[in-house]
Amino acid sequence: MITTIAFDADDTLWHNERHYAITQEKFAALLAPYCSTERVEKELYATEMRNLRLFGYGTKGFMLSMIETAIELSDGRIRGQELKEILSAGKAMLNMQIELLPFVRETLEELSTDYRLLLITKGDLFDQESKISRSGVAGYFSATEIVSDKTPQTYTSLLEKYALSPRHFLMAGNSLNSDVLPVIAIGAQAVHVPYKITWAHESPTDLLSEQNNFYTIDHLGQLPDLVRTL
Amino acid sequence: MITTIAFDADDTLWHNERHYAITQEKFAALLAPYCSTERVEKELYATEMRNLRLFGYGTKGFMLSMIETAIELSDGRIRGQELKEILSAGKAMLNMQIELLPFVRETLEELSTDYRLLLITKGDLFDQESKISRSGVAGYFSATEIVSDKTPQTYTSLLEKYALSPRHFLMAGNSLNSDVLPVIAIGAQAVHVPYKITWAHESPTDLLSEQNNFYTIDHLGQLPDLVRTL
Repeated sequence: MITTIAFDADDTLWHNERHYAITQEKFAALLAPYCSTERVEKELYATEMRNLRLFGYGTKGFMLSMIETAIELSDGRIRGQELKEILSAGKAMLNMQIELLPFVRETLEELSTDYRLLLITKGDLFDQESKISRSGVAGYFSATEIVSDKTPQTYTSLLEKYALSPRHFLMAGNSLNSDVLPVIAIGAQAVHVPYKITWAHESPTDLLSEQNNFYTIDHLGQLPDLVRTL
Repeated sequence: MITTIAFDADDTLWHNERHYAITQEKFAALLAPYCSTERVEKELYATEMRNLRLFGYGTKGFMLSMIETAIELSDGRIRGQELKEILSAGKAMLNMQIELLPFVRETLEELSTDYRLLLITKGDLFDQESKISRSGVAGYFSATEIVSDKTPQTYTSLLEKYALSPRHFLMAGNSLNSDVLPVIAIGAQAVHVPYKITWAHESPTDLLSEQNNFYTIDHLGQLPDLVRTL
């Protein structure tokens, strides 16, 4: 019944959030002379949310929000050298080595023989393209879609574009808000593959246990067996 | 013979570069206590080019390059308040009112009845989507493609995607490097609509007078008549 399986990228195929977490730790350490770690985290998050409307998702927006937060929290006393370290930490994220999550390569290899695989990822176009090309698994996907947000409308448009009925489409990803809820909302299938670190913005708010087109697995290695039962 | 006409967006449909120019002027004025306008312009451009590999094109990368340049040129003495002004100037660009160039709306209106219109623009996904939606002319286009670069391969892939032969495709835009050269390189037609300000990076290097699939017009209002002669 399923003909097309789409995958999220960040924290589904490769580690991503932990690079944000490491950078945030560095950022808090850098601002330690000016204010507490708790305040840094809270203000950075508030700044990111406020800027989302202008910046969208992605590392460059995150870098700009860190800089803005650093100026605010230090009352403008932050030094040039400290800001340079923030810029360097952000650039390191943009240039990071892609580390695939367990079972990713073999799962894509196995599924790509029987299904059309798509990559549907949210974020910064240039950064995402760069990561996909560095990942070494781009070849398993028949197409890649980089979108600015993942709403039910986003998925509806993509299904139209690929002339797909929702019942033939399955989305696998780590984010309930982006990869699961909007997908089951349009009547397609979703598989949740939780990642150990979850961004505060991504915390689930809905109960999904009653849904019959929603599944949870521990890691991507369990996906081929699950797909065959659908 | 032409069935599909694609348009670049920034500085083809609406003003863009002049907002960069205004912001760069503000930036140079802000750095005047630290160094000369000439040096600011030179260093900002060098920083942008150096960062292009990591940031790609777009306003957020431009903001980050301004901040980096400001720290460098002030030897780290730049003050928090000054950096906040740089952030504000960048945010103003992301939020700017879209001003269509002359004849844009009527040209799109006229051509959309007989041709399939595409929008092919390079840059930041989120920012470009936001500008397109604010422009008021999104409805004339049957599809929008936001790409990270415009190479011959980019256009070849798009023509494949839309099942188009190069001889049925015409691209109109202000950039020789992005909208004209790669398009005529794959045997399609290109119309150059120069914009009065040209970014240094975009200066033409090739002579095009010998090409027979390349045309220049003064403004988009001349496009419908030209297309009908092809």
